[in-house]
Amino acid sequence: MPHPNPPTHIAIILFPGFQLLDVAGPLDVLNILSTSQPLTLSILSSTLSPVSTAHNINSPHPDSKFAESIVPTHTFDNPPPGIEVLIVPGGLGTRVESEMEGVIGFLKRMDRDGGVRWWLTVCTGSAVLARAGVLDGRRATSNKKAFAWVKQQSPHVHWVSKARWVVDRNIWTSSGISAGMDLIYAWVGDVWGEEVAGLIADGSEYERNTDSTRDRFAERWGVAKL
Amino acid sequence: MPHPNPPTHIAIILFPGFQLLDVAGPLDVLNILSTSQPLTLSILSSTLSPVSTAHNINSPHPDSKFAESIVPTHTFDNPPPGIEVLIVPGGLGTRVESEMEGVIGFLKRMDRDGGVRWWLTVCTGSAVLARAGVLDGRRATSNKKAFAWVKQQSPHVHWVSKARWVVDRNIWTSSGISAGMDLIYAWVGDVWGEEVAGLIADGSEYERNTDSTRDRFAERWGVAKL
Repeated sequence: MPHPNPPTHIAIILFPGFQLLDVAGPLDVLNILSTSQPLTLSILSSTLSPVSTAHNINSPHPDSKFAESIVPTHTFDNPPPGIEVLIVPGGLGTRVESEMEGVIGFLKRMDRDGGVRWWLTVCTGSAVLARAGVLDGRRATSNKKAFAWVKQQSPHVHWVSKARWVVDRNIWTSSGISAGMDLIYAWVGDVWGEEVAGLIADGSEYERNTDSTRDRFAERWGVAKL
Repeated sequence: MPHPNPPTHIAIILFPGFQLLDVAGPLDVLNILSTSQPLTLSILSSTLSPVSTAHNINSPHPDSKFAESIVPTHTFDNPPPGIEVLIVPGGLGTRVESEMEGVIGFLKRMDRDGGVRWWLTVCTGSAVLARAGVLDGRRATSNKKAFAWVKQQSPHVHWVSKARWVVDRNIWTSSGISAGMDLIYAWVGDVWGEEVAGLIADGSEYERNTDSTRDRFAERWGVAKL
């Protein structure tokens, strides 16, 4: 059964060093959904300047210059009213403390305000949401290659090591990068109905993993028993 | 065997109404590759203004305001020298004649200059490359839901209806949207070696389709026998 009162205002946050597919995987599906459903997207960051995927974590190749920038629509200090769904992507930028301060402050304020009906995270976005305290006492998953680091970010979360994604009431967290696509299709299916989700997936020629417990990457990265 | 002389300069084109995942799927893989290989990315469009995924094709919902914008690094009129790989995404914007004129002119000039060593297309990007004449006499595939329209764009191409992607010498064309990810992993495997491609896919928690002939969407959209 589709949700009787689906959301119309979705927001996503960006920070330098975000993982492009964490953002684009879910948004491409929602872009298509927005042609048949009334949907508004807000893109938030610390300033209105374009936000780059570039980072200096894990020693990028010194001769490489390879990044993309996406333009925000609002700042963390001046968010639009009425955000109902908040998507938090991951990426190596989550390791940059100076940037995370503003992100975590914003997430805490949104949590306190109580207006967010659904929280969605992709990859290490769940580590950021955990640091903001939003995941306290909840079940959640994250990137499997980075899982040991993620667990260090908060001891108050019931981290699930083997899962493509985890749903704990209104909080949906996915495993690494590509898993955000299976998460968003599952969430769209839950809110707007499986027929809607399936039609978008077929049009996008996407082979969904519809089983949230199927996750061979937990074994691949040695965290299946963590 | 990896390629003895891999490329270092990759370019992608953007136009209003591009499909986000056509762009982000391949670029996310190349972003990761660029941390271990020397790679430069150029992003070209008609102007240096941010390019939006928004379009007015297929009647988007009137109450929706849902789009993302990516910032170009160069214009079609002032491309950087030395582009070795050119990626052409698709999207409903390919139907907007006024925008395609500049895109097709640029592709024709790049083809005539002869510097491009690999052409890669995702989704209806192959229809645009076909209109530029670059696919004349070549085998190519495209988005399956849009396949009838794609075939109308050029009678000089050997359109392959059932394929996840098609390789004809230095031209790699993929099926719709999500298929661009399988294409880029296959191409990275061909150029830098399967070990490199496999490690990025595992880190991205991506389940590859490694069989270019496996394509259930040709049947799904009724074009398997076209």
